[in-house]
Amino acid sequence: MECPKCGHHLKKYINPLPTVDIIIELKGGIVLIERKNRPFGWALPGGFVDYGESLEKAALREAREETGLQVTLKRQFKTYSDPARDPRHHTISTVFIASADGLPSAGDDACNAKIFMQQNLPPLAFDHAKILADYFKSRTEAACP
Amino acid sequence: MECPKCGHHLKKYINPLPTVDIIIELKGGIVLIERKNRPFGWALPGGFVDYGESLEKAALREAREETGLQVTLKRQFKTYSDPARDPRHHTISTVFIASADGLPSAGDDACNAKIFMQQNLPPLAFDHAKILADYFKSRTEAACP
Repeated sequence: MECPKCGHHLKKYINPLPTVDIIIELKGGIVLIERKNRPFGWALPGGFVDYGESLEKAALREAREETGLQVTLKRQFKTYSDPARDPRHHTISTVFIASADGLPSAGDDACNAKIFMQQNLPPLAFDHAKILADYFKSRTEAACP
Repeated sequence: MECPKCGHHLKKYINPLPTVDIIIELKGGIVLIERKNRPFGWALPGGFVDYGESLEKAALREAREETGLQVTLKRQFKTYSDPARDPRHHTISTVFIASADGLPSAGDDACNAKIFMQQNLPPLAFDHAKILADYFKSRTEAACP
């Protein structure tokens, strides 16, 4: 990294970027948003965690900003860190499972927000197809006697 | 942030820093290290995740560097993000449960590495007392019929 004014080389420690994604359970399905920005396509609502913000607060904020829903966090699911999961930079995303009432309405980085069933998922950006496969698998396992 | 050469104000996005901590199960106890640096005291082995490194690789690397043990990761436990969990800066730590053979020997940021039993834990740095309370509670719950 260089100073844009004098060109001095600046030492900079680069760290992976913490993010959250939220699986919002609503009316028997889950809420997905269609992205305004690259990479385009459908995705779980989510985004960057602010400095000084807990993962839980970031999850509530991102869900509200992108879907208009006041969600209730049910539990932390899992944290995903494959360096290739986001084509733009290395993000580490902690995924939460949440519930909500009402209907989603797209906001912030989302141009569309809809409820999808497991049998009817659209093509997904990032590693969200893997996250949802893990999620639906965990639900099946939890239902076993 | 300012350029140290010309004083130009630099826009910098500050993000929380991803870290890992590892609960290494060994000989009926868990491995803790005594820290060389502030905050002093005993702690779970762990450290910063490198850019481009998965959480799993970081956990294996930090366990090896600080305890000399080649650990096997059993599962991801939970991710902790309270902005006050580290007095130096905001870190978000994903905790893994691992197993190992042999005996720990301190390295890197650790000046001591020992096996402790639940009944005999030393005072712990960061939020590691809370992490271990959650861990021992989850073991008790898992043992219920």
